[in-house]
Amino acid sequence: MATIPPHEDSRFGLRRQVRLTGPLRLDSGAMLGPVDIAYETYGAMNADRSNAILICHALTMDQYVASEHPVTGKPGWWWRLVGEGKPIDPARHFIVCANVIGSCLGSSGPASIDPATGEPYAMRFPVITIADMVRAQAMLLDHLGVDRLATVIGGSMGGMQALTWPTLFPDRVESCIVIASTARHSAQNIAFHEVGRQAIMADPNWRGGDYYADGVTPGAGLAVARMAAHITYLSEAGLTEKFGRRLQGRNAKTFGFDADFQVESYLRHQGLSFVERFDANSYLYITRAMDYYDIAEDHGGSLARAFTASKARFCLVSFDTDWLYPTAESRVIVHALHASGAQASFVELSSPFGHDAFLLECPELNRVVDGFLKGGRA
Amino acid sequence: MATIPPHEDSRFGLRRQVRLTGPLRLDSGAMLGPVDIAYETYGAMNADRSNAILICHALTMDQYVASEHPVTGKPGWWWRLVGEGKPIDPARHFIVCANVIGSCLGSSGPASIDPATGEPYAMRFPVITIADMVRAQAMLLDHLGVDRLATVIGGSMGGMQALTWPTLFPDRVESCIVIASTARHSAQNIAFHEVGRQAIMADPNWRGGDYYADGVTPGAGLAVARMAAHITYLSEAGLTEKFGRRLQGRNAKTFGFDADFQVESYLRHQGLSFVERFDANSYLYITRAMDYYDIAEDHGGSLARAFTASKARFCLVSFDTDWLYPTAESRVIVHALHASGAQASFVELSSPFGHDAFLLECPELNRVVDGFLKGGRA
Repeated sequence: MATIPPHEDSRFGLRRQVRLTGPLRLDSGAMLGPVDIAYETYGAMNADRSNAILICHALTMDQYVASEHPVTGKPGWWWRLVGEGKPIDPARHFIVCANVIGSCLGSSGPASIDPATGEPYAMRFPVITIADMVRAQAMLLDHLGVDRLATVIGGSMGGMQALTWPTLFPDRVESCIVIASTARHSAQNIAFHEVGRQAIMADPNWRGGDYYADGVTPGAGLAVARMAAHITYLSEAGLTEKFGRRLQGRNAKTFGFDADFQVESYLRHQGLSFVERFDANSYLYITRAMDYYDIAEDHGGSLARAFTASKARFCLVSFDTDWLYPTAESRVIVHALHASGAQASFVELSSPFGHDAFLLECPELNRVVDGFLKGGRA
Repeated sequence: MATIPPHEDSRFGLRRQVRLTGPLRLDSGAMLGPVDIAYETYGAMNADRSNAILICHALTMDQYVASEHPVTGKPGWWWRLVGEGKPIDPARHFIVCANVIGSCLGSSGPASIDPATGEPYAMRFPVITIADMVRAQAMLLDHLGVDRLATVIGGSMGGMQALTWPTLFPDRVESCIVIASTARHSAQNIAFHEVGRQAIMADPNWRGGDYYADGVTPGAGLAVARMAAHITYLSEAGLTEKFGRRLQGRNAKTFGFDADFQVESYLRHQGLSFVERFDANSYLYITRAMDYYDIAEDHGGSLARAFTASKARFCLVSFDTDWLYPTAESRVIVHALHASGAQASFVELSSPFGHDAFLLECPELNRVVDGFLKGGRA
């Protein structure tokens, strides 16, 4: 096991990457090794090793949960929830956030070198699942000497990982916070992802995924995929409030095909800026993992049965304008948890921001997370 | 004015195309001429010329409202509502349905020959609006000797045209039926269309729209556009009921990127089959027309004011699972109509089929339309 030396972040936290020999046995049956994991940590483990919190990230996010993104220069994606004086605080918690396998921010993914060929895996990277991401995180925690998690927490795909944790490692999770998420991907969820994948694969620069050598990437297809997905992250009311039918620039229709409406310009920007920070093949692999995700399916069709060995406390949060993973999906989880005998609290928060609410200004979310975390230590 | 001779359809109705010299002055200020209009008629005008019904079609539909589509061989798209013994019946009504300008089924559109160059217009075709489509229909009715419409009816974009008719030609419309539609395109509506347009324009075969010469069309981009749009035509519950997470073929995950889930295969099929019957440039032009659509905007911001000169009766229908043009949009129209002093009835129907419900089995829709049409003759 060779550890690449950590280097200090400019703000706080440690930027690290570790190469674990593994191999990791995946749900597909394939073996992945070595397993690179890029991660950030904040704070320090306490004496009784009881303050570790694992934060799981969403589809296009990364390990920079509370530190500056190296490409975009933006603050950590959950700075509102994680940081000094925040509900998850490095002064009290040992915080770990790792880039999921399949991604492109330093953990093993399609852009990684396949040791068998010395070339990037591209589409020869094995198809992974949400459970595989969790197993890789467990390998990282082994490496860090973290036996038990005080809490595992995540929103959206991060919530899928958080919810999977106690099903795979019931003895390692004391509490679990699942925000704006679901226990299985619905037909509509799969459909939107399939549009994105088809957009990428339709781009002639995709070339079956083998585009790493010359750096000519399927950016146009990836941008379209991002645009389609981005609409699902916002609420209809939020879009109307933010953009309505307002026109660009000189406030007149051009009777052409440029971005006349502000919402068109905004979407195009979302697509283009995404291409600069994300790998198209990783987008294929991670959306596939999400589509395969169905915790009940892996437990004979019973979601409750998945949690019978767990002793964790659960906290579920949904947002009223989230139509990607609507409140009903969280209710399904809560009912199953109660049926399994687990302690589970649930709150639907009100927000105009749709699915993206978990990343945006929402003081109630901070209060709920803070209360749940402190309730565990009372 | 040269009329191309009509020829009999194999079933019933007349398949016709007319070249009107025009020119038609468009909302953009451009002049379009000649104006080709392909249309179907069913039934005959009665003695007092009081039985004419104009049916307006949706984005990707056509004039074959109740007769076989020449490319797909499928029955007319509204055969459930239009035909012998149906609410709109050629035995009683003189029924007209015309392909909208901008489309590709015989009416003037980007694939038409530009008389100035002798080449297809492609993206040199002028940008059109919903009102322009209506003005071209009015030219056709002039040609056919139809002064007044007993009814103008349409669903989705057809409803936009139907609702626009009494605002432009208040003396020519006795009643108006608007189904699953809206008085303006919302930011979310525009956003989904923009994804489709970007998918088409990102296809290298699009070539700025000049792809007619060699027949190599931007099919991949158009298929992605159709897939994204198609999701918005269905309800989440409908998709779940129809497909859920059911797998293809041997009922096992392949851990690859083929269409594992039935919903993926279905969407891919929708995309591919659409490419065979529709022109990508027409898709750009018609979605643009829909995005520009806002009746209130054209009347100083007041929707009610648009109808002050109208004496028409109105019938509005929405579907409870339609999230593309939800019931709230129909309510806005009804309130404006009432404010303008118009007689307007409104019903929200229950259907599992989302926006597509107006095209699918819905006996209540037939009863509502039948009752409204007969109420007018009592």
